[in-house]
Amino acid sequence: MTPVAANSDLPPLKQRLAETADLVTMALDELLPRGEGPEVRLTEAMRYAALGPGKRIRPFFALETGRLLEADSNSVLRAACALECIHAYSLVHDDLPCMDDDDLRRGRLTVHRAYDEATAVLAGDALQSIAFEILASEDTHEDPMVRCELVRLLAQASGALGMAGGQMIDLIGVHDDLGGVARMQRLKTGALIVHAFEIPLVIADAPEKEGLALMHFAQDLGLAYQISDDVLDVEGDPEEMGKGTGGKDAEKGKTNFVTLLGLGEAKRRVEMLSDQAKSRLDIFGGKARYLRDSVDFVLNRRN
Amino acid sequence: MTPVAANSDLPPLKQRLAETADLVTMALDELLPRGEGPEVRLTEAMRYAALGPGKRIRPFFALETGRLLEADSNSVLRAACALECIHAYSLVHDDLPCMDDDDLRRGRLTVHRAYDEATAVLAGDALQSIAFEILASEDTHEDPMVRCELVRLLAQASGALGMAGGQMIDLIGVHDDLGGVARMQRLKTGALIVHAFEIPLVIADAPEKEGLALMHFAQDLGLAYQISDDVLDVEGDPEEMGKGTGGKDAEKGKTNFVTLLGLGEAKRRVEMLSDQAKSRLDIFGGKARYLRDSVDFVLNRRN
Repeated sequence: MTPVAANSDLPPLKQRLAETADLVTMALDELLPRGEGPEVRLTEAMRYAALGPGKRIRPFFALETGRLLEADSNSVLRAACALECIHAYSLVHDDLPCMDDDDLRRGRLTVHRAYDEATAVLAGDALQSIAFEILASEDTHEDPMVRCELVRLLAQASGALGMAGGQMIDLIGVHDDLGGVARMQRLKTGALIVHAFEIPLVIADAPEKEGLALMHFAQDLGLAYQISDDVLDVEGDPEEMGKGTGGKDAEKGKTNFVTLLGLGEAKRRVEMLSDQAKSRLDIFGGKARYLRDSVDFVLNRRN
Repeated sequence: MTPVAANSDLPPLKQRLAETADLVTMALDELLPRGEGPEVRLTEAMRYAALGPGKRIRPFFALETGRLLEADSNSVLRAACALECIHAYSLVHDDLPCMDDDDLRRGRLTVHRAYDEATAVLAGDALQSIAFEILASEDTHEDPMVRCELVRLLAQASGALGMAGGQMIDLIGVHDDLGGVARMQRLKTGALIVHAFEIPLVIADAPEKEGLALMHFAQDLGLAYQISDDVLDVEGDPEEMGKGTGGKDAEKGKTNFVTLLGLGEAKRRVEMLSDQAKSRLDIFGGKARYLRDSVDFVLNRRN
C-alpha cells in the first residue's frame, strides 16, 4: 500500500478538475462586470469569452499547488481568475482575422464571429484590464506587497517579453531551429503556465526548496505541453479538438517541434519531460498526487 | 501686480509643456522593452506608438499637479508614463480597420499601416501590460499600498466601465441624448484625464479639500475637452489636425455634442466649463498658474 492509496476516498483527478473548473467559473462570474448601459455588449462579450467551456488548466495548477503549500485559498482563487482573464483575452485576440483567423473555439463561434471584430478587440482589452484590477484589490490579499508582486509577475508573463512577444514570434515565423521554437513557445504559452505556479508560491511565501521544485516542474510541464501541442496539431481529431487540425502548421510552412524533430522523437521528448516533471514532485510525497496525475491528463488532452 | 507676474521669469506655458513632453518621452524610452530576438518587431511597434510626436497632455496634468502638491516627482513621472502607455495602446487599437480605420495619426502612418494589423493588436496589448508592470515595480513608489492603488485606479479607468466601455458605446452609437453622449465621453476620454489627477493625489496623499478641488477641475476639464473635440470635428483644419475632420461624426450619422446642441451652444458650454474649471484652482493661488493656463491651451488645441 502506498500513502496515496490511503486517500482513495478522494475524488479521482477528473472529478477534481471538474470541481476546480466550476469553482473558477463561478468566481469569474462574480468578478466580471455586467455593465449598466449600452456597454453591456462589451461586458457580455467578455463573459462569453471567459465563462465558456474550458478546462481551466492554469487555475487548476494554481489551486492544486495552493492546496499543497497551504496557501490562502481565496487569494489563490482570485489570482487564478486574473490569470484566466489574461488567458481568455489572449484567445480572443489570437482568433482574430488578422491573427489565426479562427471561426471556432471549443466548438463555439469565436468572439469576433459571435459579435464582431471591434467588440472582440475591446473585450480582449477589457479582460486584460480586469485581471490587474482583480489583483490590486484588497480582497485578493491583505498584504499590498503580495498584490504588487502578483501584478508585476502577471504583467511580465503577458507582455512583450512574455506571451505577446511569443505570439509575435509565432506570427512572423522566423524561429527556424529547435532553440528558436523552444524560446517562442516558452514566451507564448510557457510564461502563463509558469505563472500559475508563481501565484501560490508568492501567496504562501513557500520555502526555497519547494519553490524551486515547483518552478522546475512548471518549466518541464510547460515545454512538454508545447511539444504535445505540436503533436496534436498533426494527430488530433478536429471534431474532438473543436478546431481544425491535420498539420495546420506544416500546411502553413511553419516550423514547429514536430517538423524539426519528427513525430516519433517529439513524442519521446514529451514522455521524457513528463517523467522528469513528475519526479520533481517527489519531495512532496503523496500530497502532490493530483498535481502528478494531472501531467498525463494535460499532455494527453484531446480538447 | 498679481502674484503670478512676480514669477514672470518662469518659462511660458508652451515651453513648460514642451519640457514635460521631453521628460516623458525620455522616461518612456527607458521604460519600454527593446527585445532581444525576433520579437523586436513587436517592441519596435510599441516604441513607434508610444514615442512618436504627442503633446503628452495627460502626463502634463499629472506632473504639473504633482508639482503643485509637492508629490515625489519620480513616482509621478513613472505613473504618468504608465498612463501614457494605456493612452498609446488605446490609439493603436482605435485606429484599427475594424474600429475607426484610420491611416494617419498626427501626420504619421498608424501602427497597423506602418507594420500590420496583427502587430498593431499585439503592440496595443503589450503596451497595456507594461503600464501595470511599471506601476507594480518598487521603483515607482516605496509603499506597496500606493502602487496597488495606482494599479487599481488605472485598471478601472481603462476597462469595461472606463475607456474600453466608452469606446464600445461610441462604436455602437446608441447614445442619442445629451446624457448618453456625456456618459459615453466620460468613460471613453474622461476616465484617463481624471486618472492623470488621481496619480499625484494618491502619491502625495493630498488633503481632502485640495483633492476635491482637483477632482472637480478634472471633471470640468474632461467634459469641456470632450465637447471641444466635437467642435473640432466640424471646425478643425484636417491638415493641422493630422487626420480627417469636416464633420466626420455627422457624416457617419453619429450623435455628438454639436449635433445635439448646435455649434454655438457647444462652444458656449466649453467656455462656461473652462471658466468653472479655472475657478476650482482658486484655493491654490498663483502656484496653479500653469495648470490654469493649460485649460485654454488644451481646449483650443489644433492638433
